[in-house]
Amino acid sequence: MRHVLNAAIAPRPIAWVSSVAEDGTYNLAPHSYTTVFSTKPPIVGFVSTGPKDTLRNVRHGRDFVYNIVGEALAERMNLTSADFPPDVSEFAWAGLTPVASDLVGAPRVGEAVIAMECRLVDIYQVPGAESWLMLGEVVRVHIADAVWSNERIDPALVRPVTRLGGSDYGTLGELFRMKRPTYAGLLDQEPATDA
Amino acid sequence: MRHVLNAAIAPRPIAWVSSVAEDGTYNLAPHSYTTVFSTKPPIVGFVSTGPKDTLRNVRHGRDFVYNIVGEALAERMNLTSADFPPDVSEFAWAGLTPVASDLVGAPRVGEAVIAMECRLVDIYQVPGAESWLMLGEVVRVHIADAVWSNERIDPALVRPVTRLGGSDYGTLGELFRMKRPTYAGLLDQEPATDA
Repeated sequence: MRHVLNAAIAPRPIAWVSSVAEDGTYNLAPHSYTTVFSTKPPIVGFVSTGPKDTLRNVRHGRDFVYNIVGEALAERMNLTSADFPPDVSEFAWAGLTPVASDLVGAPRVGEAVIAMECRLVDIYQVPGAESWLMLGEVVRVHIADAVWSNERIDPALVRPVTRLGGSDYGTLGELFRMKRPTYAGLLDQEPATDA
Repeated sequence: MRHVLNAAIAPRPIAWVSSVAEDGTYNLAPHSYTTVFSTKPPIVGFVSTGPKDTLRNVRHGRDFVYNIVGEALAERMNLTSADFPPDVSEFAWAGLTPVASDLVGAPRVGEAVIAMECRLVDIYQVPGAESWLMLGEVVRVHIADAVWSNERIDPALVRPVTRLGGSDYGTLGELFRMKRPTYAGLLDQEPATDA
C-alpha cells in the first residue's frame, strides 16, 4: 500500500527541514509528506513517519526551518536522506552552509533559494499510527533574488524537485492557468451533461 | 503570505474529494493542501481552509473518496472548484459519473484513474486557524488498467495535474531516480566539504 499511496498522491513537494539537536548538532532531512495548513496565520507542516531525529529535535527546540530544494540541490538533498547518527550533521556531509536564522534557533540552508523560519505550533500524532505532524508558523521568509520576478516567486526559476513513489523524483513540468469559475457565471451556461 | 506559501510549497498534488451531504447531494471539490499521513495503516488527508461543504459532509457522513486528477480531467476538476450551493451537485455540472463505492457512503468519480475509498479517522483543527485537517484510512483503492504497468502505478500514465500559486497548475515534468544512500556507504567516502 505504501507504493500505491506514494505513486497516487504525487508529485509531492519536499520540505527540507533543518533543526537543532539537544547537543547542538545541526540536523537536515527531507520530508515529502508536507503541505500548507493555513495561510492566515501562515502555517506549514510535515509528517514524520517513525520517531526520527527531526521529531526529537523539534520537540526539544520548538522550531525548524523549512527549506525548498531546487534542482541544483537535488543530489545534496538526497545525501541528507541517509541514516546519519543523531550527532552527525548532514550539513557538513552535504557541503551545505548552516546560516543563523533571524528569529528561530534552527539554522537555514544558505544555498536554498527559499527558506521559511517556523515556530512550532503543535505536534499532532495521527491516531493509530506511528506518524507525527509537525506544524510551524512561518515567522520569516528568505527568498533569493534569483527566484523573485514581477513581485512574486517564479516556479520556473525555483525549479523545485518533487517526490513520487519508489526512488522516483520529478522536475517541474509545463504550467498552465485556469481561473476558478463562479457559480453565477456558470448559471449562464448549460450543465455539461446537456452538451 | 498566501502567495508565498502556495508558490514555495509547490507543485502540490490535488485531492479531488467526493462526499455526500446530509440531504443526499453528491459533493465534489479539489483540495491541494493534501498529503500522505501514514502508510501503515494507510491514511491520507487534506485541509479545508474555512468551513466548506466537504467539511460539513465528512463530519456528517464520516467518509470520503480521494480521487486523482489526470490531465484529461483538468478542466472538469476546475469546474468543480466553483462556489456551488450545497444542494447542487458538481458531478452533474462537470459531466462526471458518480459510481457507488464498495465500502463507504461517498461515491467515487467514475472517470478518475485512481480513487481511494476512505473512512474518517479524525478531524483536526489547526490551532489558531480556520483550517481543518480531515484524515481518512484508505479501505479500498480503484486503479484503472490504463495507469497500471509492471505491477505498479506509472505516473507517466496517470499524468497528474498539480497546483501552484495563483491560478497556476502544473503537469508532470521529467522523472529521475536517486537511491537513498546509507551512512555506512558514505563512511567509505570523504565528506563533500573536504572535496
